[in-house]
Amino acid sequence: MADSQPLLSLDGDAVAAEALLRDVFEIVVDEVIRKGTSASEKVCEWREPEELKQLLDLELRNEGESQEQILERCRAVIRYSVKTCHPRFFNQLFSGLDPHALAGRIVTESLNTSQYTYEIAPVFVLMEDEVLKKLRALVGWSSGDGIFCPGGSISNMYAVNLARYQRYPDCKQRGLWALPPLALFTSEECHYSVKKGAAFLGLGTDSVRMVKADERGKMIPEDLERQVGLAEAEGAVPFLVSATSGTTVLGAFDPLEAVADVCQRHGLWLHVDAAWGGSVLLSQTHRHLLNGIQRTCSSAATGPRPATCSSRTSSMMWLWTLETRYLVEELKKRETFELVMEPEFVNVCFWFVPPSLREKKGSPDYGERLAKVAPILKERMVRKGSMMIGYQPHGTRGNFFRMVVANPALTRADMDFLLNELERLGQDL
Amino acid sequence: MADSQPLLSLDGDAVAAEALLRDVFEIVVDEVIRKGTSASEKVCEWREPEELKQLLDLELRNEGESQEQILERCRAVIRYSVKTCHPRFFNQLFSGLDPHALAGRIVTESLNTSQYTYEIAPVFVLMEDEVLKKLRALVGWSSGDGIFCPGGSISNMYAVNLARYQRYPDCKQRGLWALPPLALFTSEECHYSVKKGAAFLGLGTDSVRMVKADERGKMIPEDLERQVGLAEAEGAVPFLVSATSGTTVLGAFDPLEAVADVCQRHGLWLHVDAAWGGSVLLSQTHRHLLNGIQRTCSSAATGPRPATCSSRTSSMMWLWTLETRYLVEELKKRETFELVMEPEFVNVCFWFVPPSLREKKGSPDYGERLAKVAPILKERMVRKGSMMIGYQPHGTRGNFFRMVVANPALTRADMDFLLNELERLGQDL
Repeated sequence: MADSQPLLSLDGDAVAAEALLRDVFEIVVDEVIRKGTSASEKVCEWREPEELKQLLDLELRNEGESQEQILERCRAVIRYSVKTCHPRFFNQLFSGLDPHALAGRIVTESLNTSQYTYEIAPVFVLMEDEVLKKLRALVGWSSGDGIFCPGGSISNMYAVNLARYQRYPDCKQRGLWALPPLALFTSEECHYSVKKGAAFLGLGTDSVRMVKADERGKMIPEDLERQVGLAEAEGAVPFLVSATSGTTVLGAFDPLEAVADVCQRHGLWLHVDAAWGGSVLLSQTHRHLLNGIQRTCSSAATGPRPATCSSRTSSMMWLWTLETRYLVEELKKRETFELVMEPEFVNVCFWFVPPSLREKKGSPDYGERLAKVAPILKERMVRKGSMMIGYQPHGTRGNFFRMVVANPALTRADMDFLLNELERLGQDL
Repeated sequence: MADSQPLLSLDGDAVAAEALLRDVFEIVVDEVIRKGTSASEKVCEWREPEELKQLLDLELRNEGESQEQILERCRAVIRYSVKTCHPRFFNQLFSGLDPHALAGRIVTESLNTSQYTYEIAPVFVLMEDEVLKKLRALVGWSSGDGIFCPGGSISNMYAVNLARYQRYPDCKQRGLWALPPLALFTSEECHYSVKKGAAFLGLGTDSVRMVKADERGKMIPEDLERQVGLAEAEGAVPFLVSATSGTTVLGAFDPLEAVADVCQRHGLWLHVDAAWGGSVLLSQTHRHLLNGIQRTCSSAATGPRPATCSSRTSSMMWLWTLETRYLVEELKKRETFELVMEPEFVNVCFWFVPPSLREKKGSPDYGERLAKVAPILKERMVRKGSMMIGYQPHGTRGNFFRMVVANPALTRADMDFLLNELERLGQDL
C-alpha cells in the first residue's frame, strides 16, 4: 500500500457525497421498503456460504471501486440478506419495518455523535433523560436513574454489578477476593446472559443457582426460598435474584410479587430481565403480568420504539392479543398442529404433526419422530424462501416452532399462509 | 392509555412509509449533508439545557402527532445538535462526514438484522469473517479469531477476560475466589476503561498497576519490569499487560517490542489497546509505530471504515501527516501559541497564550494563569458557534487544546481559521 496514491474519495465534495447517498437511498427504498415488505417476494434468497462468498466477491483490495460498482454491491448485500421486515419473517423476537424508527436512525446516523456529554449531544442527552423518566414512571419507581445499553446481556451484567457494589462497595477497589462467596438466583428459563454475565464479572457460573420453573415456564417462589436456604447452608451469601418477564421461548412471566416477597424476607436485590416482556407496561390490559415490578431494584427493558408513539405501542399490544388469539384458534382447528401450551404473551409454540404421525400420539417413538420434523421443514422453507420461523427443543420437549406475533403489519392472511405453507412443506412426511 | 384507541400508524402502509422516509431523507440532505458541512454555517446552535428543553418540547404524550409535526421535530433535532461533520469541529477523536460509511449504515439500518448466525445474517457474517481475516493479517497474526465490539471499553474487557481464562480456565465456573490475587499492568496514560474494566470483571481497581510513562506519554519498559517484580513480591500473580497504541490526549505509542520482551520474560499476556492508533497499520510510513504488535496476544482496534477503501485510509494517513505538519509549523510561527510537544501522530496539543501572558513565561503564576485561558475560549466559541475544539489538563500541565487532524475534508484554510479564531476570541485576555 503506497501512502502517496492519489485519493479516490468524496472527501469535501458535498455534491458527489449527496449523489452517492441519493443513489443508495433509492436502492434501499426499492429493494427493502418496497420489495422487502412485499409478500410476493422471497423472505431470503438462500445460498450456501461458499457460493455466497463467490457471489459477493468479498476480497478486500487496495484499489478503490467505481461508484457504479459500489451501488451494485449495495444491491447484492440487500439481495442476499434476510428481509426481517417481510410479512412472512417470524424467525426472531423482532420483525417488521417501523418507518418512524428507521427515520430516526437515519437522522442519528447522519449526525454521528456520541452520548458522552451535554456539550457534544445536547438534544440526545435531554431526550435520554426524558425517556428514562417516563420508563421509571411506567415501572412505578419514584426515584432512580437509568442507562441505555447496547443489549440485554450487558443490561443484566450492569444490574449484577450494581447489586454487588451496593452490598459490598469494597469490591470495586479490592475485587472479589475481599468478599465472601456470593450466590445469585434465576430460573432455569432465564436468558443465558445471566450465566455468561456471572462468568464475565468474575463470580463464576457456579454462583448462579437455578430455581425451578413450573410447566408454564414461571419461576417457583417456593423453590427460590429453598435455594436461598441451601446456598446459605453451603456458606455462600445470597445477594440477587434475576427474575424474567417474558422468557425467550415460552414468553413466560415470573410471579414478581411472590418473588419480591422472598427477596424482602432475605434482603436480596431484585432485578427483572424484562428485555422481552417489558413492553406490556404500556398496555392497560396486560400490565398485570408485571405486577410487582415497582418492587424491583433494577430492571432491563426494551423501551418503546419511537418516543412519541406510546399510544401506538399500546394499540399494538391490543392488536397483538387479537392476532395471537386468532393464530391459536386456527392451530386448534387443524389436526396438523399441536399447541405446546396456551400462550399468555405473543410467543405461540406449536408442533407441526405430519401425516405419518397423525393419530400416532402415545406410540413410544412419537416424541422422537415429531422432534425431527421442524428441522426438515425449516430447511425446506429457507431454500424456497417462502418464510422463516424459528424452532428449538425445550426441556424434555422435542423441537417445536415458536411463532412471535410481533410485526404490527401482520395480517390474518399472513398467518393463514404460515399454517398452509407448513402443511404444504410437510405433506410427504 | 386505552388499549382500544384507533391506530395512528404507518404499519403495513408501504406508500406512507416511503413518503415519510423520503421527507426525512430530504431534511437530512439539506440540514446535515449540505448545511452541516458548510463552513459558513454554525458548528452548533448553543442553548442552555433548560431553554433547549422548552424549545424541543420533549414531553412524551399518549396521543400521536401529525406527519408535519414529526418532520418539524426532525429539523429541530438536527438544528440543535452539534455538527460533527462540520469542517470546524475538532472536539473529539472523530469528525467529518464519510459518505460511504453513512451509505453503509443506511443499508444496514434498513435491513435491521442481528449478527447471531449465518441463517439470519448470511452477508454480514461472511463480511465480518473477511474483515477480521484482513485485520489479523495487518497485525501479523498467522492464526486467531476476532470479534466486533460496540466500543473500546468492552474490547479491553474482553481481552482481560480472555487472558484470565487462558491462565485460569477454572475462573469461568468457580469465580475469582478459586484464583490467587492477580495483577495487570498498564501505563498511567492508558484509557480509563482499563481500571473500569478491572472493577467490572471483579478484579478490583487495586489489581491495576500503573506503569510510569515518559514525557512523551510512552510506557517505560524498565518501570514495567520493576512493577512486575513488586507485584510478585506482594504476593500477586501478574498475568496481563495492556499497552496503548495512540493515547487519548497525546496520541502516544507505547514501545511494543520492548514491552513484549518484558512480557515474554515473565510469561504475561500482552494486549494492546489500539482503538485510536490502530489505523496506522494501513500506512507504510507510519506502521513502524506499531512495530511488535505481531507479538501481542490480543488487540483492540478500530477497523478501516468502508471495507473497500483501504487505499483511501492509507492516503488519508498521508494527508493527515502533511496537514498535521502544516498545523505544527503554523503554531510555531505565531507567538500566540505554544506547542505542548512535537506530535508523532495526529494529536496536536498546544496552549493559546493571550496578550497579557506574552513574554511572562517563567513568572511564578504563568502556568496557573495559562490554564484558565482554554475554558474561557471554549465557552466563547461554543456560544458563538464558530468552532469546537477540546481542552484538558494533563499531569502537571494546565489546560491546553488538543486538535485532532482526523477529518479528511479538512483544508489549510480551516486550520488557519482555527488559529485566527482563537486569536480573535482571546485578544482581550
